[in-house]
Amino acid sequence: MECSVAQIAAMVGGKVVGCGSDRITGVSGIREAKKGQLTFLAQRKYLSFLNKTKATAILVDSTIIKPQALPCNTMKTLILVKNASQAFDRILSEFSTEEKKPSKGKISDQAFIGSGVKLGKNVQIQPFVVIEDEVQIGDCTCVQSGVYIGKEVSIGADCHLYPNVTVLSRVQIGSRVVIHSGTVLGSDGFGFEPVPGKLPKKIAQRGTVVIEDDVEIGSNVSIDRARFEETRIGKGTKIDNLVHIAHNVEIGKHCLILGQVGIAGSAVLGNNVVVAGQAGIVGHVTVGNQTTIASRAVVTKDVSSNVVVSGFPAQDHQKAKRLMASMSFLPQMVRTVSELKKRIESLEKKNT
Amino acid sequence: MECSVAQIAAMVGGKVVGCGSDRITGVSGIREAKKGQLTFLAQRKYLSFLNKTKATAILVDSTIIKPQALPCNTMKTLILVKNASQAFDRILSEFSTEEKKPSKGKISDQAFIGSGVKLGKNVQIQPFVVIEDEVQIGDCTCVQSGVYIGKEVSIGADCHLYPNVTVLSRVQIGSRVVIHSGTVLGSDGFGFEPVPGKLPKKIAQRGTVVIEDDVEIGSNVSIDRARFEETRIGKGTKIDNLVHIAHNVEIGKHCLILGQVGIAGSAVLGNNVVVAGQAGIVGHVTVGNQTTIASRAVVTKDVSSNVVVSGFPAQDHQKAKRLMASMSFLPQMVRTVSELKKRIESLEKKNT
Amino acid sequence: MECSVAQIAAMVGGKVVGCGSDRITGVSGIREAKKGQLTFLAQRKYLSFLNKTKATAILVDSTIIKPQALPCNTMKTLILVKNASQAFDRILSEFSTEEKKPSKGKISDQAFIGSGVKLGKNVQIQPFVVIEDEVQIGDCTCVQSGVYIGKEVSIGADCHLYPNVTVLSRVQIGSRVVIHSGTVLGSDGFGFEPVPGKLPKKIAQRGTVVIEDDVEIGSNVSIDRARFEETRIGKGTKIDNLVHIAHNVEIGKHCLILGQVGIAGSAVLGNNVVVAGQAGIVGHVTVGNQTTIASRAVVTKDVSSNVVVSGFPAQDHQKAKRLMASMSFLPQMVRTVSELKKRIESLEKKNT
Repeated sequence: MECSVAQIAAMVGGKVVGCGSDRITGVSGIREAKKGQLTFLAQRKYLSFLNKTKATAILVDSTIIKPQALPCNTMKTLILVKNASQAFDRILSEFSTEEKKPSKGKISDQAFIGSGVKLGKNVQIQPFVVIEDEVQIGDCTCVQSGVYIGKEVSIGADCHLYPNVTVLSRVQIGSRVVIHSGTVLGSDGFGFEPVPGKLPKKIAQRGTVVIEDDVEIGSNVSIDRARFEETRIGKGTKIDNLVHIAHNVEIGKHCLILGQVGIAGSAVLGNNVVVAGQAGIVGHVTVGNQTTIASRAVVTKDVSSNVVVSGFPAQDHQKAKRLMASMSFLPQMVRTVSELKKRIESLEKKNT
Repeated sequence: MECSVAQIAAMVGGKVVGCGSDRITGVSGIREAKKGQLTFLAQRKYLSFLNKTKATAILVDSTIIKPQALPCNTMKTLILVKNASQAFDRILSEFSTEEKKPSKGKISDQAFIGSGVKLGKNVQIQPFVVIEDEVQIGDCTCVQSGVYIGKEVSIGADCHLYPNVTVLSRVQIGSRVVIHSGTVLGSDGFGFEPVPGKLPKKIAQRGTVVIEDDVEIGSNVSIDRARFEETRIGKGTKIDNLVHIAHNVEIGKHCLILGQVGIAGSAVLGNNVVVAGQAGIVGHVTVGNQTTIASRAVVTKDVSSNVVVSGFPAQDHQKAKRLMASMSFLPQMVRTVSELKKRIESLEKKNT
Repeated sequence: MECSVAQIAAMVGGKVVGCGSDRITGVSGIREAKKGQLTFLAQRKYLSFLNKTKATAILVDSTIIKPQALPCNTMKTLILVKNASQAFDRILSEFSTEEKKPSKGKISDQAFIGSGVKLGKNVQIQPFVVIEDEVQIGDCTCVQSGVYIGKEVSIGADCHLYPNVTVLSRVQIGSRVVIHSGTVLGSDGFGFEPVPGKLPKKIAQRGTVVIEDDVEIGSNVSIDRARFEETRIGKGTKIDNLVHIAHNVEIGKHCLILGQVGIAGSAVLGNNVVVAGQAGIVGHVTVGNQTTIASRAVVTKDVSSNVVVSGFPAQDHQKAKRLMASMSFLPQMVRTVSELKKRIESLEKKNT
């Protein structure tokens, strides 16, 4: 594709500052962009790249640069928009033609398909996939090579299972679900009773996992089946890579769970919860709606709705920040207290 | 299966409070249970569900509710037992018929089996399994699809390797071992010598991994082979998901290693050690028997037997708790010390 | 192989203290070694094993033991060398014959190979590998079973992809690269814009991953593709197990990234950076050359070159250590401050 800067501005409702007739032949990041390419600037910290980039035109957040306050030496053509990242995404899809999910349905004759399997229209099954008995798969779902789908699993329409995903028996997956490579759904929950002097006794894990519609799960994620009933991931929730979700966890709708988070057994998260990277949530706690758990926080007890918590143990983020700030005074304070003690002793001597 | 409450009480040695002739047709969690089902109550914090649940009968820990102290408005039939969770597990297995490991031995002709491979009786090998030369597998072991078993690996009897497990050359696995999907046994230890101005030099990793009898390993776990000799997981030890075990680590018998724990090279753990979620253990340290490492703790030096440690660096758990408690006084104390300083100055002025 | 202690000393430029004619038939760790074997001692903390080990000869760092200061009761034959670990590694490779990468090129007829695929000389492709269209693979590269290689991927010469690795479309891999099992290259970056009251909107991830020459990546690692352009791992960098590398991250040359580290989107690391176990780096920060991030540290802002940082938030390691030290005084200080307050009050009363 090739078009003018003015045409791009029209597509995203932006205002051109510079030359609208410049030709754009591709898109790229601000550091890597070459002549003829469009890039974007959405964070103030990258402002210094504005003149360094080789891009021909730059989508810029109008909150970052006011037209009247433009650096006078800016030779680049800018397109001012409300949300440069979103606008760039829109243009990116115009310039990109790759379709990640193979478009035509095709069942490889090098796949193993059990008995009683029901496949919708245009399902794609790549080589070396195993589909066990009584599995159901909806229309236009794509199952890539090396995927294992256990007995009685049901998968909705328009899903994409990337290579080497494992979905164990009876797991239920909705429609428009994307699961990245190496992820395991339905491994046994970690349930063992210690028996003094003997082997820990395994507690049977006979429940399942339910993934609702529009969920996306990153690579190398583990989601355990419930002891009985369900571990559940709510509609539209997105999970990053290497996340551990234990048995009987319930996650609400539209949550974002970032990389390497761990959620212990039977924890319950509301809707629109954000759990930032490497955070942990202990077992049997409840987290309210619209709550954010900061990076590396450890949630050790129930958290209400509409709050931000951080630290270990996780507490109100403002309070945690004050604690953090007072900690930096600590080495000085140790010295101060020791000095004050001496001055008090000296005062006490004089007073006796 | 269907039976009466009285029959269930008999199976678990419990005492019925209510109607022993009620019919039970299934089992479920206390929140999800429907009419006709049995559930259980093992934690005081779920006590409020006692009247809310739709279950027909509830197994209850007799430590939580004394028969004489029953809420008078309880309409449910209770079965009082010593350990409700264990009793429920017992009944769960009565109501569940699913056998996770396929029962009959069958070798898929879509598997690749090398030369010199010795398979016991009733071994099951699913499609797209690769078994390299000179592998030995004991009776009744099940190897699911996508599993790779490297040269000269030995696996005992009654094991279950879930789909997409990778077992690399010469790894030794005992009997009754369960390995969940995505787990890798015998990847190279991380051994590199920095060479100033050059590429780090790889230190050959020529040892192996030994998994003793009755071990269970979760999904997406990485256990590295030793530099030489063995990385060893002791009999009956259970490992949760996404755990990292580096080269030359030795873990004793009957340990529980929870989700996302990392254990660095050459660390040695005794028997019956519990390492809670997201904890870390640095290299070359020793942890004694019956010791518990709390969640998120970082063990930086040797830990003796029969203790509980927490925090970073890990220390006696009671001491760490006192430290944690005093930290919450910190912002207040910063203010107090500053105020005391002024009062001392004022006293000092008066005294001169 | 079998040789004399004197011959081993000659190979590593060591000095024999004891009997140079002793025969050595194998190598082992100091705890496990048997009669006739060679072992090594490179850390002072294992000094007590010098007399306990059953090894016939021991490579010892000459910095640990001076010949003149040898314990007079040492009956073992020692070989004093500058770097016992390196010397042992050298001898280990003499005694070991196993070649991890199968030596002869062979393309399994049970692999699936798409159209337009270009394979170099002596490429080895094991059963149940999928290679999509337009892939290029260089000479002597080995692709083990269950590996998926997406469309238009290019892989250099002398690489080793262990079983069940996933390389998604357009990823570029240099030469002499080793990738361990379960690792995923090119899964989608975690890019979602929250939309109030609606599903989070997916931001297309259309870039790729570039792995430069001589990189080694552990097992169960996730490296996401860039939003556009590239996530890049520099020449000679080594990555341990279960590491999460988000979209658009750039890692320089010769870095060491240890187990369970997480690096968030668009972070940039210089050359020769060491990131120790379970550390985290937030998005959009820059880390300078030759810098070390300690275990469990969280880098929250840019870090300059040639420094060591630790703690959360990561700061100068010496400062962090002082902070850690003063924290241990905290419970005592809470008591001291409370006591001083009373003494001041008492002084104030006397003064009025």
